[in-house]
Amino acid sequence: METVILTDPPRPPRATVDAFSRIGAATVHEAMGRTGQISDLRPIQQGARLAGTAVTVMSWPGDNLMIHAAIEQCGPGDILVVTTREPSSHGMFGELFATGLQRRGVAGAIIDAGVRDTQELRDMGFPVWARHINVMGTVKNTPGAVNVPVIVGGQVIDAGDILVADDDGIVVVPRARADDALDASRARLAKEEATRDAFLAGELGLDRYGMRPVLAELGVTYRRHPEAGPA
Amino acid sequence: METVILTDPPRPPRATVDAFSRIGAATVHEAMGRTGQISDLRPIQQGARLAGTAVTVMSWPGDNLMIHAAIEQCGPGDILVVTTREPSSHGMFGELFATGLQRRGVAGAIIDAGVRDTQELRDMGFPVWARHINVMGTVKNTPGAVNVPVIVGGQVIDAGDILVADDDGIVVVPRARADDALDASRARLAKEEATRDAFLAGELGLDRYGMRPVLAELGVTYRRHPEAGPA
Amino acid sequence: METVILTDPPRPPRATVDAFSRIGAATVHEAMGRTGQISDLRPIQQGARLAGTAVTVMSWPGDNLMIHAAIEQCGPGDILVVTTREPSSHGMFGELFATGLQRRGVAGAIIDAGVRDTQELRDMGFPVWARHINVMGTVKNTPGAVNVPVIVGGQVIDAGDILVADDDGIVVVPRARADDALDASRARLAKEEATRDAFLAGELGLDRYGMRPVLAELGVTYRRHPEAGPA
Amino acid sequence: METVILTDPPRPPRATVDAFSRIGAATVHEAMGRTGQISDLRPIQQGARLAGTAVTVMSWPGDNLMIHAAIEQCGPGDILVVTTREPSSHGMFGELFATGLQRRGVAGAIIDAGVRDTQELRDMGFPVWARHINVMGTVKNTPGAVNVPVIVGGQVIDAGDILVADDDGIVVVPRARADDALDASRARLAKEEATRDAFLAGELGLDRYGMRPVLAELGVTYRRHPEAGPA
Amino acid sequence: METVILTDPPRPPRATVDAFSRIGAATVHEAMGRTGQISDLRPIQQGARLAGTAVTVMSWPGDNLMIHAAIEQCGPGDILVVTTREPSSHGMFGELFATGLQRRGVAGAIIDAGVRDTQELRDMGFPVWARHINVMGTVKNTPGAVNVPVIVGGQVIDAGDILVADDDGIVVVPRARADDALDASRARLAKEEATRDAFLAGELGLDRYGMRPVLAELGVTYRRHPEAGPA
Amino acid sequence: METVILTDPPRPPRATVDAFSRIGAATVHEAMGRTGQISDLRPIQQGARLAGTAVTVMSWPGDNLMIHAAIEQCGPGDILVVTTREPSSHGMFGELFATGLQRRGVAGAIIDAGVRDTQELRDMGFPVWARHINVMGTVKNTPGAVNVPVIVGGQVIDAGDILVADDDGIVVVPRARADDALDASRARLAKEEATRDAFLAGELGLDRYGMRPVLAELGVTYRRHPEAGPA
Repeated sequence: METVILTDPPRPPRATVDAFSRIGAATVHEAMGRTGQISDLRPIQQGARLAGTAVTVMSWPGDNLMIHAAIEQCGPGDILVVTTREPSSHGMFGELFATGLQRRGVAGAIIDAGVRDTQELRDMGFPVWARHINVMGTVKNTPGAVNVPVIVGGQVIDAGDILVADDDGIVVVPRARADDALDASRARLAKEEATRDAFLAGELGLDRYGMRPVLAELGVTYRRHPEAGPA
Repeated sequence: METVILTDPPRPPRATVDAFSRIGAATVHEAMGRTGQISDLRPIQQGARLAGTAVTVMSWPGDNLMIHAAIEQCGPGDILVVTTREPSSHGMFGELFATGLQRRGVAGAIIDAGVRDTQELRDMGFPVWARHINVMGTVKNTPGAVNVPVIVGGQVIDAGDILVADDDGIVVVPRARADDALDASRARLAKEEATRDAFLAGELGLDRYGMRPVLAELGVTYRRHPEAGPA
Repeated sequence: METVILTDPPRPPRATVDAFSRIGAATVHEAMGRTGQISDLRPIQQGARLAGTAVTVMSWPGDNLMIHAAIEQCGPGDILVVTTREPSSHGMFGELFATGLQRRGVAGAIIDAGVRDTQELRDMGFPVWARHINVMGTVKNTPGAVNVPVIVGGQVIDAGDILVADDDGIVVVPRARADDALDASRARLAKEEATRDAFLAGELGLDRYGMRPVLAELGVTYRRHPEAGPA
Repeated sequence: METVILTDPPRPPRATVDAFSRIGAATVHEAMGRTGQISDLRPIQQGARLAGTAVTVMSWPGDNLMIHAAIEQCGPGDILVVTTREPSSHGMFGELFATGLQRRGVAGAIIDAGVRDTQELRDMGFPVWARHINVMGTVKNTPGAVNVPVIVGGQVIDAGDILVADDDGIVVVPRARADDALDASRARLAKEEATRDAFLAGELGLDRYGMRPVLAELGVTYRRHPEAGPA
Repeated sequence: METVILTDPPRPPRATVDAFSRIGAATVHEAMGRTGQISDLRPIQQGARLAGTAVTVMSWPGDNLMIHAAIEQCGPGDILVVTTREPSSHGMFGELFATGLQRRGVAGAIIDAGVRDTQELRDMGFPVWARHINVMGTVKNTPGAVNVPVIVGGQVIDAGDILVADDDGIVVVPRARADDALDASRARLAKEEATRDAFLAGELGLDRYGMRPVLAELGVTYRRHPEAGPA
Repeated sequence: METVILTDPPRPPRATVDAFSRIGAATVHEAMGRTGQISDLRPIQQGARLAGTAVTVMSWPGDNLMIHAAIEQCGPGDILVVTTREPSSHGMFGELFATGLQRRGVAGAIIDAGVRDTQELRDMGFPVWARHINVMGTVKNTPGAVNVPVIVGGQVIDAGDILVADDDGIVVVPRARADDALDASRARLAKEEATRDAFLAGELGLDRYGMRPVLAELGVTYRRHPEAGPA
């Protein structure tokens, strides 16, 4: 693996990123054809919803050297993304890193490893998604890379991609697809709003989506429950 | 597997179901001879405690067709129970389904798969227990069944059974045993109250349950710790 | 295994224990040379931070007999630590035990098994760390031991050791190392405070820790991102 | 839970059971409409394929008292099925039990817990499927039940049901469905044989099952790979 | 996701692929700078070692439609790679697929889901690596893609990449890096051979790699064990 | 953690260690009062049974520096035991280490992390128990310790303890208890032999262990199965 720090990653327009921060991760995921889901990292807080631009870090397990190097590459609206070259449960990220990042205007962090100082991070209002919570610390001995493509939760994240995160998980929007994904997300939002209204009015999905004939064609039949009470 | 929707499932009297909603799942479980526990699904909210009547759904993994069909079978006081024919982490349930169910007076949902829109579900006050939280969506291509017996968390749940759920997990009360289980639960509550009072008054379980001779008979001995300080 | 209850375990001075309760688990862990971490048990509440003296219990899976025996050995400032001779998910601890312990001034419980009555425990303000949440109850048939050394989460805990616990997990401080660990923890706190101030002032870890030459020596290079925008 | 030993369970005709022993578990599962699969227990040996009649045991975790009671209920062609009232990794079954069972003509054992003496069991030619391999032993203190319905791997197994097991896992055939399932399994075998011959002759599933129009209808398109070499 | 079948994927020269089949996966991985490892899928057989060219399949969980479509795209020396859009334990691959593939000269299969007919696959000599073994079958209802890049075990696999697999796991060699990786693998083999000879002759790694001064510099000290016997 | 290499660890008499190598791990575990079990590491081979003296290694995750240091401390009849300061799946041990150890007369290795070159290790006849199989390699940057007490699989292993390992797992016999444990193991073997003979002769455990009155006392009743055939 090349041990390199790529500086000045491309970033989509701030307005585009901000627009995503008002849309839920599930909606963006649906709008992109059900792609981009990173569901196995969990938020350490409840109720956060944000979007940001990825600054990626590839670290050796139990070693935070490259996170230190990455801080300098982070700017306003970024989200720090850390992964390791083999699964690691070390608490690689905590309050001190968050302090430095928050000062730089960074929006949050996604740690495919462990995190610690979770009370302090919640108190600071610095949102984090992680795989583990663990007090166990790190060394600073082994090189890695910053702003190269990484794979987290089965998805490629490249520097400059947009990350949309909330309590449901994280969705990655490739930078090149950002505008299309935003348009599709807005269309999806409108569709969901219409469906919500219909459901509130008592319409059933069976009727709204024309599924009754589908059920019949698939051989699904209706029958009174054998222990049904009087009709 | 038969692809059938059983309509008009039997339901225990509403008063019986409501009575269970004021008793914790652990107490009901103890009252039924330590049976009925479904502990591996977790609530997405904190502090909910409810009871309801099961409407069951057997779906293909990653396919929510049968949930749409099941909504129509749900009524006031029901709890929707969804499982899949093989483990699935798809987000099969979310805000839109909950909107339709809430309008019908449904009490909550138990999803042996994934759920999404968790912020929205908490905001709506619609309680859900699930195995996964995941933005990943579903298709509507494969048939299944509604109101047939399903197995969730190692327990059979049949349509019309009572489900008691809180932060500790879920307990299933078979419909035929509902009255006996309610009586036993109330007796258990009274016993727990008496025990609580005794413990608050300083009595020990060792004495209350007569365990000192049991310990002796089992060969348990007492000895001062080798590093004990002065007595 | 010897089936014995060791009475009057040694306890470090209360002031020492209390001093740890104001320091986070991660800090104590770092101060002890990154040792003592027990990260795979999770708190059932959010925001608790405490320290206490261990009273240990070794139980048979699904059997709470020895917990009853241990209650009598617990006093003010203790933390009850329960493990089983093979992994167990039974709900071995709940509100009634906590009631008895709270009356005795016990600070909390660490259960390497399951816990139940989690709503009630939170309402009581009795903090618990556990591996499982489970309504499933226990029997009282098989002997075990109290205040013998146990292994929880990969760490030996002996009666009289200090446990420091918060949302990040638990750290065990061996009794014999308590004073040294407290001194080191206070030094670490001061160091963290200075680092926090430096980071708030915009200093980078790269500079503060002199890592730039380390990166160079390890062969880490800098290069503009191939898709970087104009500088 | 009722603590009872049901004697003289019904058993399907031996010829029916034997017929299943020559059919793979996957084939029987398909023939029953893709039901009955128990895939999370693994064989401790390679290459065994057998069928037998279930004698069921419900034990307390870490307690083998009821297995002793169940041995007496086992006869030629049976398969001993052991589960526990909460997950357990104890080595609840080993060479000595197998010795007694083998003398009685029992075909094998399915242990939803741990097993030990695996070298000896393989040497004896006594096939076992289990969830764990573990030297840890058991006590004999807590009652349970024999020949009541149990749930293993998400399937109900009742005394007298047929179990078909091989390296792929286990399939349960409810006793009442045994004849139908055997007929369907034989039909499925014939179909698989014809398909194997067709595939050996070069026919594609796409053509054999008429899937080309299905793909087109679902919107699947064909396109040369952008980096394809010369045609 | 685009539902497309890419035909005629590029393939590296057969001689290159074959050369990798005589080198272990661990060696290739080291030669590529410790990259490319897919270690969480396990072989269903013991002792196989092979290399082949990837034909990739992206399927819906529990749906084998696209595998049927992919068979037609496979040729001599290929390895079929199947993944699903969300984790799936279905037995998506078995003897009949292997029969068709073997006739086409395909070298093996890598299934990031379940496999069945494992006895038959071993008898056929068709090597398979998979995540699950499971009798549970599939439907053919939902579209996917063939020969698009997929992510398996944290690595991107594209059509035409080389896969090297043995009992240790799988390593993916990107097509564009094949020649360099082969050269490096051969150099690594030679180095390993020299090290083996040195170790057989009694040389220590401490000396061979000059680690004694490193240990000293890192502060590692030597001391006789406190309970050491007479020297 | 102190970074130290303890030389010349105490070793129990070779005859004692060898005597354990002819007794199964489960038997030794029972003879020691059901203690010492390490069941979550699995052998990479089938049919090995051995005993040896522990040389312990505490490594940083993904770093094999201390294994190199430990080789020099190993001698005939030893077993190398490697753990890491936080869970690690790196392939930390393989053929080259085994070559050096085998030359020194070392009996085997227990790796609480990953292992690679598993085909070669089996071909060499060097037995290994490990938690993971993984091609992923290591660095040599971070110090650790040799021959200090380590915790593996919930058991303390100190340098000089005896390890007994077979297909069922590993049991640790503390050096100070070796003679007593050997006597007890031989007595247990004799008892097992007698039980085996009794079971072969048709005696039931129910009778041999006098359990029939126990069952009655515990309230276990006998009843004909409701669907029993004619007696």
